Amino acid sequence: MPLDRDHLIGKQALMLLLQPEYKLPKELADLGWRCCKGKVGSMDAQKVVAAVETAAKNQGMIEHQLYREAHALYHGILEALSGVTRGNNQLGTVLRTVGLTFSIVRGNPYKDKREGEWLAVALYGTIGAPVKGLEHETIGLGINHI
Amino acid sequence: MPLDRDHLIGKQALMLLLQPEYKLPKELADLGWRCCKGKVGSMDAQKVVAAVETAAKNQGMIEHQLYREAHALYHGILEALSGVTRGNNQLGTVLRTVGLTFSIVRGNPYKDKREGEWLAVALYGTIGAPVKGLEHETIGLGINHI
Amino acid sequence: MPLDRDHLIGKQALMLLLQPEYKLPKELADLGWRCCKGKVGSMDAQKVVAAVETAAKNQGMIEHQLYREAHALYHGILEALSGVTRGNNQLGTVLRTVGLTFSIVRGNPYKDKREGEWLAVALYGTIGAPVKGLEHETIGLGINHI
Amino acid sequence: MPLDRDHLIGKQALMLLLQPEYKLPKELADLGWRCCKGKVGSMDAQKVVAAVETAAKNQGMIEHQLYREAHALYHGILEALSGVTRGNNQLGTVLRTVGLTFSIVRGNPYKDKREGEWLAVALYGTIGAPVKGLEHETIGLGINHI
Amino acid sequence: MPLDRDHLIGKQALMLLLQPEYKLPKELADLGWRCCKGKVGSMDAQKVVAAVETAAKNQGMIEHQLYREAHALYHGILEALSGVTRGNNQLGTVLRTVGLTFSIVRGNPYKDKREGEWLAVALYGTIGAPVKGLEHETIGLGINHI
Amino acid sequence: MPLDRDHLIGKQALMLLLQPEYKLPKELADLGWRCCKGKVGSMDAQKVVAAVETAAKNQGMIEHQLYREAHALYHGILEALSGVTRGNNQLGTVLRTVGLTFSIVRGNPYKDKREGEWLAVALYGTIGAPVKGLEHETIGLGINHI
Ligand SMILES: [Mg+2]
Ligand SMILES: [Mg+2]
Ligand SMILES: [Mg+2]
Ligand SMILES: [Mg+2]
Ligand SMILES: [Mg+2]
Ligand SMILES: [Mg+2]
Repeated sequence: MPLDRDHLIGKQALMLLLQPEYKLPKELADLGWRCCKGKVGSMDAQKVVAAVETAAKNQGMIEHQLYREAHALYHGILEALSGVTRGNNQLGTVLRTVGLTFSIVRGNPYKDKREGEWLAVALYGTIGAPVKGLEHETIGLGINHI
Repeated sequence: MPLDRDHLIGKQALMLLLQPEYKLPKELADLGWRCCKGKVGSMDAQKVVAAVETAAKNQGMIEHQLYREAHALYHGILEALSGVTRGNNQLGTVLRTVGLTFSIVRGNPYKDKREGEWLAVALYGTIGAPVKGLEHETIGLGINHI
Repeated sequence: MPLDRDHLIGKQALMLLLQPEYKLPKELADLGWRCCKGKVGSMDAQKVVAAVETAAKNQGMIEHQLYREAHALYHGILEALSGVTRGNNQLGTVLRTVGLTFSIVRGNPYKDKREGEWLAVALYGTIGAPVKGLEHETIGLGINHI
Repeated sequence: MPLDRDHLIGKQALMLLLQPEYKLPKELADLGWRCCKGKVGSMDAQKVVAAVETAAKNQGMIEHQLYREAHALYHGILEALSGVTRGNNQLGTVLRTVGLTFSIVRGNPYKDKREGEWLAVALYGTIGAPVKGLEHETIGLGINHI
Repeated sequence: MPLDRDHLIGKQALMLLLQPEYKLPKELADLGWRCCKGKVGSMDAQKVVAAVETAAKNQGMIEHQLYREAHALYHGILEALSGVTRGNNQLGTVLRTVGLTFSIVRGNPYKDKREGEWLAVALYGTIGAPVKGLEHETIGLGINHI
Repeated sequence: MPLDRDHLIGKQALMLLLQPEYKLPKELADLGWRCCKGKVGSMDAQKVVAAVETAAKNQGMIEHQLYREAHALYHGILEALSGVTRGNNQLGTVLRTVGLTFSIVRGNPYKDKREGEWLAVALYGTIGAPVKGLEHETIGLGINHI
């Protein structure tokens, strides 16, 4: 049941964002792990959610016909967004904007095969006033069973 | 005023946690950037706050005689904790525990020298039930001017 | 993919609490749906979480060796608790107490078999000052895929 | 001062939503209890608030010329909405929508006549992505003195 | 229905805290307005709630046998506490403490007599680390119909 | 390091709002303290933020070319807004509006000169339904080092 320290799904999602050239280790790809990346900049929190959902569907990260997969992804995104906004999920409504890259990783981070697949959603970039340069970095990570 | 993409203070704080062997680049150290790392595991959110504050003082990350520095650090910690808890800062009170490493980086991430010093506080580790293995990864980052 | 209006898992969980004599319809039991009920009164939010988790394990609602099931349950409980506390998950720390009954229902509320199993956690009872009678009713419902 | 277990105002409001044919018991109607029901579907949280307020005024649940009654109702609605959204009152801004029925009940749920009138606002229905079928049930209840 | 600009109940509660010698204007006292003041310092949010509740009862600000009055006061206190903590009601659990004075004012701030009595709860003082001097000012105000 | 009880920056900001004729004491002006005031009414939280930011820039309260000053102000505004909204920063999205006056004060409230400058942002006025008269008072205060 413990996490496999070599299969940390959150760390993989974060490394994909922090190091542009980073690739999912071959060992994980061989185990069937999948990942995708994208970008989104907006003052609308809903556009951040939509961008991640769209990428996940288009790149086959989830079986989007199944609500259970869309539901797992949605809560993962909201948890990541909570980190980015430090709790309130508010962007333009409190006069701030984000420029983010996002990654999604799908795989089983546990030693026990029965734990099945999990999803990590990571967001990293800048948050600040809608004025160039008035911004600092921000990060968020959501992890859910799928 | 823009962020210097080679001087990303949040990214430095995160890399220190995600790659155990990572060191602050010499270029940044030469500019006077400082950093420290530590560990804390607890069901009490206040112990997480205390562990980071204590490390910051003991390792000279802040001038702890000055409230303005302690205040900058405190809000940075709370923002990072918000990411870890996805918004509510609650651990044992909702029956969960964390095992975290933390890092603090101090330096000026902007191109303009007048932006002065900023602080990044990063937390990374696991969160879950107070039962070994019932946990997943979590991250948080707080950034503040000091 | 749509919800089956005759298989509303949340409604079942709520009816189990609102009508003491209510039983899961035979049709649902025949489909393999399971449920359990219990009681908890406390000023500690963590004891509410623990009571529901313990009942779920002891009555076989989840495979407690699997973190993915414990994780699904935990987030379901926190969502229900959020309804009870109207957002902050705080009881004794803001000087209030609850007297609750809880129910858990497990089954597939969707028309599509591939949606698999979901969990509903419902909490109903009173919330108020730690003085007999100074209280009003409260409810919460959390629903998660498992 | 204790709640009268036969006069549970929250339970009445919930039963009105969970069982379409449910009617306020004659005993309560004879005591002057009043209730109303309605429907609202929206991605705008403010439309949910408006729908409940409008129904309350139009159906004489509150004396809408008095702010103290409008105030009691408003906070009751927000508490119910908090249950529906599990704490953040956000719908479209985080890319989700609701399809809800609502009920309002007005009466004295306490044994002591001096407790005067109280208001229960209940919301029940579905919450999910703005795509048919990608949704699960949700509930919320707010109770306030009036 | 409009607020009477000479009968601002919140302003009265705030002035009582900000100017130690301030007294409720005779005009308001003649209309039956009442007020009380007190002090509380703690790392426990529940002790702040308890201190205000106890003062309210002991000084006859509410009819504490009636839950509707205790309920009105409780929500007023929590709203004021939310201002003091800037949203999370957390003190010691996030390693901070408060030193507060509080005031309660009861009266009708509206031009229309039918608006009846309202309650204002104000909190003012300092919040910060549990170390002398590491603190800044904070305020909160809750207003409720009673 | 302690607060100077004659130099309470939050109290100054509050008095500027509560007493229209109030002026910053000459002693503080002589020490270089600065202040400004303004008004804003809106259902959009972002317009409240914008109004305070614009006044601060136009009246020289911050060096708006420096992000560290804009950042200090922004977090001060959000803390004040949190008091006004009692935690959620939501106005029109939950069908309510505000009519506020605001003040900003800049100076060093501590006995130690090394504490440097701090900023207090205060908001005071009414909050309620978008209907004249359906409103009560509200206050918020944010304090930050700059
Ligand atoms: Mg989780
Ligand atoms: Mg910031
Ligand atoms: Mg959900
Ligand atoms: Mg209540
Ligand atoms: Mg109100
Ligand atoms: Mg502070």
